[in-house]
Amino acid sequence: MMLQFDIESLLDAYARGLSPLAVIETVYDRLEAAADPGIFIHLAPKEALLREAAALGEFDPAVPLWGVPFAVKDNIDVAGMPTTAACPAFSHVPQIDATVVALLKRAGALCIGKTNMDQFATGLVGVRTPYPVPRNAIDPTLAPGGSSSGSAVVVARGIVAFALGTDTAGSGRIPAGLNNIVGLKPTLGALSTSGVTPACRSLDCVSIFALTVEDAYRVFEITATHDASDPFSKRVPKAPLGARPPRLRVGVPAELRFFGDALMEAGYEAALGRLVRLGCQIVALPFDDFHAVADLLYRGAFVAERYAAIREFIETNEAALHPITRAIICGATRLSAVDAFESVYALRALQARIEPLLASVDLLCVPTAPTHYTLAEIAAEPIDANTRLGTYTNFVNLLDLCGVAVPVGALADGRPASVTLLAPANRDALIAALARDLHADNGLGATGWRRRPRAAPPADDGERIEIVVVG
Amino acid sequence: MMLQFDIESLLDAYARGLSPLAVIETVYDRLEAAADPGIFIHLAPKEALLREAAALGEFDPAVPLWGVPFAVKDNIDVAGMPTTAACPAFSHVPQIDATVVALLKRAGALCIGKTNMDQFATGLVGVRTPYPVPRNAIDPTLAPGGSSSGSAVVVARGIVAFALGTDTAGSGRIPAGLNNIVGLKPTLGALSTSGVTPACRSLDCVSIFALTVEDAYRVFEITATHDASDPFSKRVPKAPLGARPPRLRVGVPAELRFFGDALMEAGYEAALGRLVRLGCQIVALPFDDFHAVADLLYRGAFVAERYAAIREFIETNEAALHPITRAIICGATRLSAVDAFESVYALRALQARIEPLLASVDLLCVPTAPTHYTLAEIAAEPIDANTRLGTYTNFVNLLDLCGVAVPVGALADGRPASVTLLAPANRDALIAALARDLHADNGLGATGWRRRPRAAPPADDGERIEIVVVG
Repeated sequence: MMLQFDIESLLDAYARGLSPLAVIETVYDRLEAAADPGIFIHLAPKEALLREAAALGEFDPAVPLWGVPFAVKDNIDVAGMPTTAACPAFSHVPQIDATVVALLKRAGALCIGKTNMDQFATGLVGVRTPYPVPRNAIDPTLAPGGSSSGSAVVVARGIVAFALGTDTAGSGRIPAGLNNIVGLKPTLGALSTSGVTPACRSLDCVSIFALTVEDAYRVFEITATHDASDPFSKRVPKAPLGARPPRLRVGVPAELRFFGDALMEAGYEAALGRLVRLGCQIVALPFDDFHAVADLLYRGAFVAERYAAIREFIETNEAALHPITRAIICGATRLSAVDAFESVYALRALQARIEPLLASVDLLCVPTAPTHYTLAEIAAEPIDANTRLGTYTNFVNLLDLCGVAVPVGALADGRPASVTLLAPANRDALIAALARDLHADNGLGATGWRRRPRAAPPADDGERIEIVVVG
Repeated sequence: MMLQFDIESLLDAYARGLSPLAVIETVYDRLEAAADPGIFIHLAPKEALLREAAALGEFDPAVPLWGVPFAVKDNIDVAGMPTTAACPAFSHVPQIDATVVALLKRAGALCIGKTNMDQFATGLVGVRTPYPVPRNAIDPTLAPGGSSSGSAVVVARGIVAFALGTDTAGSGRIPAGLNNIVGLKPTLGALSTSGVTPACRSLDCVSIFALTVEDAYRVFEITATHDASDPFSKRVPKAPLGARPPRLRVGVPAELRFFGDALMEAGYEAALGRLVRLGCQIVALPFDDFHAVADLLYRGAFVAERYAAIREFIETNEAALHPITRAIICGATRLSAVDAFESVYALRALQARIEPLLASVDLLCVPTAPTHYTLAEIAAEPIDANTRLGTYTNFVNLLDLCGVAVPVGALADGRPASVTLLAPANRDALIAALARDLHADNGLGATGWRRRPRAAPPADDGERIEIVVVG
């Protein structure tokens, strides 16, 4: 059965009579075929999923994710499944779903299990876990990226239709970029973090991995809702995914950092060329202040948020942490409250300087990651490689930007290229519309599947704002 | 010369030919008559002011503060005058005006000098200064209130027309309430804090003391402007001071704390009665969460902002601090960055709980201070008295409310009663309009002057939004 697991294809197949039991069988078959013990930390028993699928009854097109299998990063609670955040000693079994998971189940989606991650969501490499490291879906010698490593790989392999991640410093974008899929990182507060193990509470958000932008945005529309139980929850607009406005102004870094990776640089330049052909105007912006913001995330006091997130646990279980994670998080104990507020002030000053830059464009386009690293390279310099991976991601949540990482083609050596579109809070629909049109048709994830034909070509010179319906 | 020094009266007199030189003479005469060496830390030489006044030339009604004398709290820079923040060792002479001062000078106002204050704006009592304590303008046995003690007293005595203060925890409201004048504390970020010695940078704002709400709001309209040099500056609406909307919903604490001061309680109840007669609906709100927010200001990690504000100075001059100020500020060194973020989270959780309460009303009305303290009482318990004074002020900036303290009459024993109207950010015009109509006509400050007759009674059942022009 070669059924594509993008959501639209699945729902079409259900409408034509496909049984969700068959889909569940396919999920477990594909997982077995992948032979990657690093993807899931907890996998639901197939029998349980078959029962859930059977309980769905007749297909109901009004249930927007009817029978759609998904996976959940292991720092997001699913009732009855252990939450470990990739730290076995932290394991506990929540009795209730995280708000986002509850919303997805209510929409008919079926949760397969909990995916591997950089421990406590601290890392962009995907290897800081005591469990087997998930294999990059495109090239097993490369790092899968993190921290939402398992969620990205399981989508890239077509095992589930979508997966939840989290994103504080890039954890929802880097592994999407490194595995040739879409990673949607919504405006902060759009998706509830109730039931999510925090990394940096003031900066955390739940993110969405999917094979297409349309799928990711569909999940966003279902899960973005104000949640009174989450103090960081906000009421954000959920504009439909319409045609993109013509002649968008796209800011790009005036000076780029690829750390010597000429192929990645070429991939990025090619993507800018496609933006131009889509009618965008490219505007080079000074990027020093963005990099200065990024530096605050680990070199400033915000790392203390990571300690605060698990203070009770870490004070009695320090030895249970991954050594690199422990070194990073426990470094925060040297920082004073005065340091913390000085970091807040430094951030505020940079935000004020960056504000007019952002106001001069509609959105930004940056490389998702500047380069790929092999597992061997990361083993040799685990901190520095991680820092470089975050070159274009670490500043994003500190500036309350929304973002979507989107594949832009394969490099000459087969590695995937990806760019991330970024915009100030609440422009989720805008960047998604452009990302959809920019998405390269080089196969979805590692599956070889193709994007479904669109009903109409995207408007790039009109004022239409209706939804361009897929399929 | 008994000329009233409210701004409208002054400008009228100028229009009729009064010389600003005569006004300057009057300022210095009144100051001498007050015989209070605690008001000013630095007083400009009279000759300098006479020269400035002469340089104004012909009266120009288009210059909104032409020849209007004002005073500036000594934590706000005035070029060429020392800034001490009431700490002599901190004294330095800035070369440029704080942004707000520059705007006032450009509007024609004349700066007389720098006023006394609780050192580093830490306190609500007005006595934490190494200089002589300014005397309460109504009753010299009572505390003047702080931290903007000198600015409140100098206005209450009719020596200047208005004065700048600052307000982090109530410093712009408490001394207004204790001296029978108006204290306007704008929305955070409305007035630039460039050139202001910080107390808690994320919570500081410049405030305005005046004899009438109209005067205070006039100064607000002149000074509220975005300032790119202040990272905390915001673009806020400056609606004209129009007629108040009819039938406002006014939230009040369901349980009130006056610490046994039955007269102050009666004064507050009388003010609520006047609000009802003005067409307002009184809505009792649970206030526990507001008090919990207030507790965060000194018992949480925000006190570390006070250390950060003067870190470099305090690390080499700790002994130069007032002993109580030192004890409070240096307590912050025990706090970690983790503590700081946990306070931020605690605040965020309380903000989320309070949000629906605020959404259920148009504004709040609280006592400005719950009671008065004598100087002897404060000497006996300097910390506790200060804390109790902040009962209805400490939570305000942490919730980003705007506020205006307004006199509501004299108590049976002659002490002034005051309430503070509070509302979410950007409703400055709304609360000012109601405060103007609520202002009791029991004499302005300590002067015995009366509010000028109004052109028309305030509309309380119409939809008019034009300015009700005074006299």
